[in-house]
Amino acid sequence: MTTPPAAIPHAAAEAYANPLLIRQLLVNPLRQSPDQTIVYRGEQRFTYRQLGERVARLGSALGRLGVRASDTVAVADWDSHRYLESYFAVPMIGAVLMSVNVRLSPDQIAYTVDHCEASTLLLHGDFLPLLAQIRARLPKLERVVLLSDTPVTTRPDGIDTDYEALLATGDPAHVFGDFDENTRATTFYTTGTTGMPKGVFFSHRQLVLHTLAVMGALASNPGGQNFNRGDVYMPITPMFHVHAWGMPYVATLLGVKQVYPGRYQPDLLLRLRSEEGVTFSHCVPTILQMLLDAPGSAGHDLRGWKMVIGGAAMTPALARAALGRGIDVFTGYGMSETCPIVALSQLRPGDAGADAHAARTSAYAAGKSAAEAAIGAGDITDAEVARRARTGHAVPLADLRIVDPDMNDAAHDDRAQGEVVVRTPWLTQGYLHAPDAARALWNGGWLHTQDIGRIDASGSLQITDRIKDVIKSGGEWISSLDLEALIARLPAVVEVAVIAVPDPKWSERPLPLVVLRAGAVCTADEVIAHLRVCAERGEISRFAVPTEVRFVEALERTSVGKLNKKRQREVALGR
Amino acid sequence: MTTPPAAIPHAAAEAYANPLLIRQLLVNPLRQSPDQTIVYRGEQRFTYRQLGERVARLGSALGRLGVRASDTVAVADWDSHRYLESYFAVPMIGAVLMSVNVRLSPDQIAYTVDHCEASTLLLHGDFLPLLAQIRARLPKLERVVLLSDTPVTTRPDGIDTDYEALLATGDPAHVFGDFDENTRATTFYTTGTTGMPKGVFFSHRQLVLHTLAVMGALASNPGGQNFNRGDVYMPITPMFHVHAWGMPYVATLLGVKQVYPGRYQPDLLLRLRSEEGVTFSHCVPTILQMLLDAPGSAGHDLRGWKMVIGGAAMTPALARAALGRGIDVFTGYGMSETCPIVALSQLRPGDAGADAHAARTSAYAAGKSAAEAAIGAGDITDAEVARRARTGHAVPLADLRIVDPDMNDAAHDDRAQGEVVVRTPWLTQGYLHAPDAARALWNGGWLHTQDIGRIDASGSLQITDRIKDVIKSGGEWISSLDLEALIARLPAVVEVAVIAVPDPKWSERPLPLVVLRAGAVCTADEVIAHLRVCAERGEISRFAVPTEVRFVEALERTSVGKLNKKRQREVALGR
Repeated sequence: MTTPPAAIPHAAAEAYANPLLIRQLLVNPLRQSPDQTIVYRGEQRFTYRQLGERVARLGSALGRLGVRASDTVAVADWDSHRYLESYFAVPMIGAVLMSVNVRLSPDQIAYTVDHCEASTLLLHGDFLPLLAQIRARLPKLERVVLLSDTPVTTRPDGIDTDYEALLATGDPAHVFGDFDENTRATTFYTTGTTGMPKGVFFSHRQLVLHTLAVMGALASNPGGQNFNRGDVYMPITPMFHVHAWGMPYVATLLGVKQVYPGRYQPDLLLRLRSEEGVTFSHCVPTILQMLLDAPGSAGHDLRGWKMVIGGAAMTPALARAALGRGIDVFTGYGMSETCPIVALSQLRPGDAGADAHAARTSAYAAGKSAAEAAIGAGDITDAEVARRARTGHAVPLADLRIVDPDMNDAAHDDRAQGEVVVRTPWLTQGYLHAPDAARALWNGGWLHTQDIGRIDASGSLQITDRIKDVIKSGGEWISSLDLEALIARLPAVVEVAVIAVPDPKWSERPLPLVVLRAGAVCTADEVIAHLRVCAERGEISRFAVPTEVRFVEALERTSVGKLNKKRQREVALGR
Repeated sequence: MTTPPAAIPHAAAEAYANPLLIRQLLVNPLRQSPDQTIVYRGEQRFTYRQLGERVARLGSALGRLGVRASDTVAVADWDSHRYLESYFAVPMIGAVLMSVNVRLSPDQIAYTVDHCEASTLLLHGDFLPLLAQIRARLPKLERVVLLSDTPVTTRPDGIDTDYEALLATGDPAHVFGDFDENTRATTFYTTGTTGMPKGVFFSHRQLVLHTLAVMGALASNPGGQNFNRGDVYMPITPMFHVHAWGMPYVATLLGVKQVYPGRYQPDLLLRLRSEEGVTFSHCVPTILQMLLDAPGSAGHDLRGWKMVIGGAAMTPALARAALGRGIDVFTGYGMSETCPIVALSQLRPGDAGADAHAARTSAYAAGKSAAEAAIGAGDITDAEVARRARTGHAVPLADLRIVDPDMNDAAHDDRAQGEVVVRTPWLTQGYLHAPDAARALWNGGWLHTQDIGRIDASGSLQITDRIKDVIKSGGEWISSLDLEALIARLPAVVEVAVIAVPDPKWSERPLPLVVLRAGAVCTADEVIAHLRVCAERGEISRFAVPTEVRFVEALERTSVGKLNKKRQREVALGR
């Protein structure tokens, strides 16, 4: 609630106190960049002026369709100009935007759309079969709007209207009103390894502050790993996933050209990068690897493409491969509960590699090839790679700590570890209809990430583990992620997961489960000897070196492809 | 008031809603840049770690001294590390920082310190004679703390303690608590041409949002006219003047090196620029002119010094002179009532001169001289100069309009004019104990700047006049500033002020009052003929060309050196 002017001593009765509303993010871009471009798949082009008109049409048309303030409007689409329009129009009428995770199972999708009590669903034609399958389980759903890349001539059963027909009924000059900045703007669901997805939620105030803080953090880094008015933006993290990391709001506020690629196809993504001049993106490591490995990838000049990598740890090997192609990769850290961004791993002035990177960037700008610009093992140092692959520095207004179970701070010496807990003005304040989970999330007044990390003297965080996966041995934490990264260096190893097994003396000990390359030979002793060398070099502590190694055929994974260490542990322990 | 978590559906009872408080601006810089430097006059050096400790000491010591939350603490100092510490510590204990404008008359200073009911005064030794003169008129003042650049051995009469002795009683580990983000953080007084100064006031929320928005706007411009983590900051706008344009908060949040120059002396400012490597500053045109004209100025390499110019219009001639020295000048717009920044005139990608500027910057970076980098009339175009001297683009969250008296918007065609009215989350909500002035300021729910301006298709504002100085002729506004700028082009003219005089047919007509260079000859007909040529070129409208010109010995000015058109008009009309 913004304090009414009347409550402020000496304030004028008519003084305007400016609630922080999403509509305000649009005011200046529409005035200052009216002719800037928004591209959909290279096939459709809109100006910001049209964006403003289409947002006004969508907002007013949804109202005429019967959507009320505080109603929930669910959207199931690939990354599109339509999604961007929904990011603004739905919250701007006081309704709640629910972004449907279309990668979930039909059961989970039905559960989430029903659980958030969506009255309205905007649905891409690709998902009509899914809708037919789950429609009966959505009793609260009152209307479905079809999203289509081509003109809709016949309306399928159960569809009330289509998006362009809906927009045609709207007012392009509709003026959006003000309301309480704590009004809910968005909600979406996050999946764990167990149970049904949980709903997180964010207010207008929270999204405006996330946008300002992320813009400030990204923009203020000189020489690279930044996002500024000269960039061209393309998301490669789905818009149904945590507001596409909040970047569409930042891009719009910056007034830059935006490119929405629809359903992700590596060849299209690479083509859009080249043809539309994309310079700023963000994605998970898997997508980055896919872009590097795609047929024809080598034919694209990727130099100078700034890319935030998050969602999972970027391995040094992947970072080096991307840097070798000239991609300016760096890490972003956050989760569904955190809106998401709380930290970024930009190379700061004086950091290892910052000068070398600036030199490479100048060389790129001068049109030199990677080889000419001396891109190679000699130029990109391990220290630079490690800096980019670190979790990074907290962004403005994010208060990020590593603590023991009693909430005492661990030292910032890059050795002491603790659970990462955080406060920022843009964290979910709970879970929808899940008070126990909400209470655990906010235990002690800090949001518990369930990540374990260490912090160095510059305040840079390095996540080392997940609480659920952590190994507590002789009172000390052993990082399963550190062990996995070191074991993965062995050429014979395809995959590795390190789990905790009970130990009478140490309480727990680490047990690596190793998948070998077909035909490769490697013994447990070789793995252990390798780790001893690593311990001598100080890369891990001596007590972290395991005494046992197990070789397996494959690792257990969850439905979304993440390692399932819980199940792994059950299998390994024969439960 | 931040909404308590309990009021948000599904929120955890312990969820932390993050009020926007000044203390949060310090959290990350202290963790991420603990060894960064704060320099005072080149004589004293502090780290950010020490800044944190001294802020904690000051806050806790003020409490022990008897300062309560909501008390007002006045500070009379030159630009110093102490002022920076006060910017944080005073609001962080819930008290209000009142920055004393030491350039006012003793009467006005006594009035303002008493009017804001300051209980405590932090006063530089330079102002002890002033204090002796006004002390009897400050009955609410309970204590005075002496600020000194050297150790204080004997305490003058009426001084309770000195700053370093006070800090010694404080706790360097003091933890500041939370409170309502709408708590008043600062207050200071703005002078008009008539009446006593008026007190404006700003909350924690407002200062945090101003900091984030200004940081985002300044940081996100590529290629120049920006402020980023690689810069070294030095204010050349006094810290008692509108939070030194809010830049000390931005600089601290960025974690950059900061240089505080004490009382402004041109040779010291230039020496600090060179010796401390200053790259980002802000000042009024008069100070910029002083730096360019100072003895020895030519011996300093000023290339790459980014400088925001505000407070008065930067003339194209001054902009060109600064650019010729390699200073990256651009305009900032705002006023005491607006915290202050609402617009900035950065060259945006594609703007006239943006590419040329980038080329010059690269040349500077490569160590080339201005001549080698082709700095000269041929390189710096009139279009680039005009862009830098424009008032500029609204910063994020600033909603800036030009309106007629009925609040209808004027067209954004760079011709139609209107009063500039504004909404941002960081505007004073009124004046202290001045309800009528507050009501006029906020008439219709928009803050009235009393400036007249036009806006171009890119949303860039150009201030053309002050409402009080405006000339309404035949229903059309004539810009006195435009006329003055054109007349000033004549070599014989030293100074010019254009005022409105009553006219039976046109209601008002413009009358230029011209001061000629000693010995120069120029007739009214020559001035009028010159303006007719300007009108033919489209620089002004035909009806703006005056039919009369008056030559005078000197122009009327206010106590702070601004043109006093009201008095000028009275003199010209023989009143």
